Amino acid sequence: MKITASAIGLLAAIPSVFGLWPIPTSHTEGKSNSQVWWVDIQVQGQSSPVVRDAVERYRNIINSESFLAPVDYKRGSTDEALGLETDESYTLDASLKAKSPYGVVRGLETFSQLVVVNTPISIKDAPAFPHRGVLFDTSRNWYSVDAVKHTLDAMSYNKLNVLHWHIVDSQSWGIERAAYSDKQLYSYKDIKDIVQYAKNRGIRVIPEFDVPGHTYAVGLSHPEIMSCLDVQPGWDKYAAEPPSGQLNIAKDGSIEFAKKIFKEYAALFPDNVIHVGGDEVNMRCWETDPDVQKHLAANKNETVESLLLSWYGKLHNYDTIVQTWIDSASVPNTVNRGYRAVSSDYQSLYLDCGHGAWLPNWDGNSWCDPFKTWMHVYNYDVLANITDPAKQKLVLGTEVAIWSEQTDEHSFDPRAWPRAAAMAETGWSGKKDASGHVRTTGEVASRLHEQRYRMVGRGVNAEPMQPLWCARNPGRCDLP
Amino acid sequence: MKITASAIGLLAAIPSVFGLWPIPTSHTEGKSNSQVWWVDIQVQGQSSPVVRDAVERYRNIINSESFLAPVDYKRGSTDEALGLETDESYTLDASLKAKSPYGVVRGLETFSQLVVVNTPISIKDAPAFPHRGVLFDTSRNWYSVDAVKHTLDAMSYNKLNVLHWHIVDSQSWGIERAAYSDKQLYSYKDIKDIVQYAKNRGIRVIPEFDVPGHTYAVGLSHPEIMSCLDVQPGWDKYAAEPPSGQLNIAKDGSIEFAKKIFKEYAALFPDNVIHVGGDEVNMRCWETDPDVQKHLAANKNETVESLLLSWYGKLHNYDTIVQTWIDSASVPNTVNRGYRAVSSDYQSLYLDCGHGAWLPNWDGNSWCDPFKTWMHVYNYDVLANITDPAKQKLVLGTEVAIWSEQTDEHSFDPRAWPRAAAMAETGWSGKKDASGHVRTTGEVASRLHEQRYRMVGRGVNAEPMQPLWCARNPGRCDLP
Repeated sequence: MKITASAIGLLAAIPSVFGLWPIPTSHTEGKSNSQVWWVDIQVQGQSSPVVRDAVERYRNIINSESFLAPVDYKRGSTDEALGLETDESYTLDASLKAKSPYGVVRGLETFSQLVVVNTPISIKDAPAFPHRGVLFDTSRNWYSVDAVKHTLDAMSYNKLNVLHWHIVDSQSWGIERAAYSDKQLYSYKDIKDIVQYAKNRGIRVIPEFDVPGHTYAVGLSHPEIMSCLDVQPGWDKYAAEPPSGQLNIAKDGSIEFAKKIFKEYAALFPDNVIHVGGDEVNMRCWETDPDVQKHLAANKNETVESLLLSWYGKLHNYDTIVQTWIDSASVPNTVNRGYRAVSSDYQSLYLDCGHGAWLPNWDGNSWCDPFKTWMHVYNYDVLANITDPAKQKLVLGTEVAIWSEQTDEHSFDPRAWPRAAAMAETGWSGKKDASGHVRTTGEVASRLHEQRYRMVGRGVNAEPMQPLWCARNPGRCDLP
Repeated sequence: MKITASAIGLLAAIPSVFGLWPIPTSHTEGKSNSQVWWVDIQVQGQSSPVVRDAVERYRNIINSESFLAPVDYKRGSTDEALGLETDESYTLDASLKAKSPYGVVRGLETFSQLVVVNTPISIKDAPAFPHRGVLFDTSRNWYSVDAVKHTLDAMSYNKLNVLHWHIVDSQSWGIERAAYSDKQLYSYKDIKDIVQYAKNRGIRVIPEFDVPGHTYAVGLSHPEIMSCLDVQPGWDKYAAEPPSGQLNIAKDGSIEFAKKIFKEYAALFPDNVIHVGGDEVNMRCWETDPDVQKHLAANKNETVESLLLSWYGKLHNYDTIVQTWIDSASVPNTVNRGYRAVSSDYQSLYLDCGHGAWLPNWDGNSWCDPFKTWMHVYNYDVLANITDPAKQKLVLGTEVAIWSEQTDEHSFDPRAWPRAAAMAETGWSGKKDASGHVRTTGEVASRLHEQRYRMVGRGVNAEPMQPLWCARNPGRCDLP
């Protein structure tokens, strides 16, 4: 399909700034600035509901966009003098072509960022990595449906395309059962609404039902299939965080339960990928469980680990993508064994780190100190130590993780943005420009400042990166 | 004056929770729970504009309060059955007495927190420290007038009583001149508005005009009285942060300028205390300045340090309170020399720490890592190592500092709250209860959770302290 946009423009002297985020694969800059006054977007040829929704959305975004990029703050008002010498010329047609409705969505975001800058003549753009996500944890603290949609909007401004929805955990089962309250869960209707909202923005929703660890909440309705449920005091011997509770891998009821929920929820979420968790299993929890002990006594060739592995094997035998987080070797290890990998290396991509410990009687630091700055996020190279192109292809991309033990909708925006935008660029644009030069944070700061102010203008409470003076004076707040 | 509040109450079974913050000096708990349905507050006897404003404000706060304390989430709906056995009794008059309008303001806040809990019969309350402040930096990033007022509201919910307004710095002179733009400064009208708003909440506004360091912004209009103005590259040899610039202490024009602005701004702010800064002066800046070098060549008995001291001496010879931040010895050192002290010990009270460095070409940590959790803030003892009661009296109190290099109104609330509330309690209630027991963070966590949810209900985007499950299950997320 083809979109044409007609922008009625006025040639005026505007400080040139090329503020696209993420930066397109290639572009050719135009020679003169145009200030765009009105945009109308029309679809020619075949269309689709996603495209029509996107066109309507971006028409509104563009026509109500009012943020001023920091370097433009001293721009004076437009000259409306009328006389013999008034320049009445106008121009600019932009044509947007794409192979899928979602390419259109991506292109419309770029177009929305273009309309106030030195307008390039031609952009050719495509993502370096197909999986660019946010691990969104609504189980540790509550997020309203509006808050989820707000996050999807913010993601769409950055061409992020996966919402890895960590929707249940020990602290709540926030989908239709065992949630905080009947006001704090997502009904099936809510989920369909959110999935459609995401789809309109070209965002896949991949839900996670973390098993067999992190499952205290299951014990509220199914205590008989649990191990080490809410051990008090002393949860710390049985779990990574309180309250303790894991599915009892020696009981058939636990695998029946797990298969049942995956069958039910897989039908609810249209994506062909579902996340089964497997995070932070605690071996002592099972070693001390009477049913596990009985099973091992009767099956001397088995261990807790082999029992766990066979439990996983009973749960599913689907093609598996591995999400890694625990160290730098994980991604190479995964692809070297032939599996596809998505990285959330905690050293760079865990955005919750550096906020102190959260047990109220312990004055300690966060386990994954320090705080990861946008520069640190941006500098992450998911292909580090992977030189074989065939193996590189197995790296699907990255996800920033925003674990919510200390975050909810009242603090999410500044926690997530603009740091997640930093990863959005390396995910979309890769680490290098066309000449092979690795982009540095000093070089990209101006554009990210602009993206931050753009996002604020669109209602996202992204935090500032620096003093405003520094945003307005690029390069003058660098480390010499 | 005397305030009476009539609350029409209904005896009902409500889980008992005593959620006042900060905790009063003393209280006697009542024996039965009352759920309060309507509050009317009347003033008897003498009144004042501050009192009338506060009464109106708290009447609205109380009658629109809708937050649910986390431990109450499972509370069912009220029994409206009507029959022979219905209990029709009602009671509760509360009488609030105070010696100043600001005692009334404090008492009304406590009353607003009481109306949904086990209602004490009697509270007697007074602050341990007279200075309990927020160092509010509107110079590194911009805050609208509404954002300033919003912060004053949040402070009033915590009985904080000083807004230390860091209103100018190198990066902007946000008051009537040299501001970011003519839309981003505080006019004298704005300031009077804010000062009155603060006064209604019993909050003093103490402005700071930091001299002679941190004054690049002065150089925009008075370059002739400056030293080391905007050295690029290499600002880091001449200043703690970019851009560099200090008042030239060898030029009479600099002291004339400083005296002029203090005279002008002292007339604008009614408090009898004004903050003259003196922070982070860089000696090399002056050592390399030609005017300073000329002065020292002609005055061989002087040094840069003595020149600086005599500059301060020319600026003012008023009674001085010292605000300390740099180490634990500062407070004892100050009071042992007979000066009054206000502490912002960075190790506990700098709330901006732990957010990484902010120079875009340097992937580093914040200089004052790690992040200070609410527990760490709460554990701070400003009287540590000061045993002489006469010296203890010289400690006026504490201020949390929220430096804004990486914060503005889009991220301020979660950055400040509820951590500043932790300091608000130690400032109002002291470290110990009446028996001499030092309150621990494990003991107070429930009440602070409740204060956090109360603040959220009142429109302050305080961040969550823990997973919601932990807030609802006190003691079950403690470190064993």
